[in-house]
Amino acid sequence: MHDIIRDLNWRYATKKYDSSKKIKKNDLEIIKESLRLVPSSYGLQPLKFIIVNSTELREKLKPISYNQSQITDASHLIIICSYININTSHVDDYLSSILRTRDIAINEIEAFGNSMKTTIDKMKNEEKYKWNKNQAYIALGQLIHTCASLRIDATPMEGFNAKEYDKLLNLSDQNLSASLVVPIGYRHKEDKVQFAKKVRKSQDDLFITL
Amino acid sequence: MHDIIRDLNWRYATKKYDSSKKIKKNDLEIIKESLRLVPSSYGLQPLKFIIVNSTELREKLKPISYNQSQITDASHLIIICSYININTSHVDDYLSSILRTRDIAINEIEAFGNSMKTTIDKMKNEEKYKWNKNQAYIALGQLIHTCASLRIDATPMEGFNAKEYDKLLNLSDQNLSASLVVPIGYRHKEDKVQFAKKVRKSQDDLFITL
Repeated sequence: MHDIIRDLNWRYATKKYDSSKKIKKNDLEIIKESLRLVPSSYGLQPLKFIIVNSTELREKLKPISYNQSQITDASHLIIICSYININTSHVDDYLSSILRTRDIAINEIEAFGNSMKTTIDKMKNEEKYKWNKNQAYIALGQLIHTCASLRIDATPMEGFNAKEYDKLLNLSDQNLSASLVVPIGYRHKEDKVQFAKKVRKSQDDLFITL
Repeated sequence: MHDIIRDLNWRYATKKYDSSKKIKKNDLEIIKESLRLVPSSYGLQPLKFIIVNSTELREKLKPISYNQSQITDASHLIIICSYININTSHVDDYLSSILRTRDIAINEIEAFGNSMKTTIDKMKNEEKYKWNKNQAYIALGQLIHTCASLRIDATPMEGFNAKEYDKLLNLSDQNLSASLVVPIGYRHKEDKVQFAKKVRKSQDDLFITL
């Protein structure tokens, strides 16, 4: 079996974390760098990642996360936030970043910039957030894979009260909304779910070849 | 530098594929198995993956994909489709699958089943598709990582005419809609983008630690 498949079979949505085990600095840096490298539509990266270390804050997040124990017990808690709005100034910042990074002239990316601006201008506000929220799920997919390769557990969560998160963390004022919550750390030896067989559809069910 | 970071730096959204290079059967099996193992909300897997080998069909998809050459030139073309609708019968199928896979009694998963059904019943039709489409992006994130680890190129695409895809492939009748298109294969040595420096925000820009 290839390592990738072994890693992905090893992982599961951990229910109970061993709160005594902490992710090492070096591994956390790999996870952060992986999140930084996540691709996004046009490369705009309309995301922020909040890492919550504060015990006090995690205790406050727990009741607005259906009291799931992973919120407080996992080694680290990552909140993937998406931009609520995105506009031409974000595109301009991005274009400046491209110019700074690559030694090219503005006219080489002008058409690309205009195409992004036209796309964004046409979108309604709710479409913009929906689009930005989609990008959060790409980050989630990459994060899960990275964690599994590092043999770090992760529990992807859609089940939390996003409005209460936004209020508690003052996110709306920063043009952000909490899209996904991902406790990461190490499974507790008493978490029975780790021993349950993974349930997945068969390849025959999932794939169509044309 | 850790292998994961090296792999993720190696990848880029390939613009021009070398159409003479084909993904080996063994690697394709790893990619398919990785997609099969992608996590999803509740584990419902409201997705299908279409792999288009037919040259004729790929020629037809190209004009409804802004004539992007990757559609025809990449080794393989994956269309990630989401269920349009999801209902209690999908939940029942899933519950049966859990029972088949794990040796447990129905009463052990009854509460879980009811919770899923309640959630789904409350959703409007457009919310259901939005939810299912989100799951397609998790698959995309995992797929990109898996491909990078195998040193296989991938080009995530939102830029295609989903309505025309659905029509051409007769997807609506199968309760499906095309969410994402991902040509995969090997970069052409003439693709200049591979030599351009990767543009990403800094970790300082992207991370907030609380």
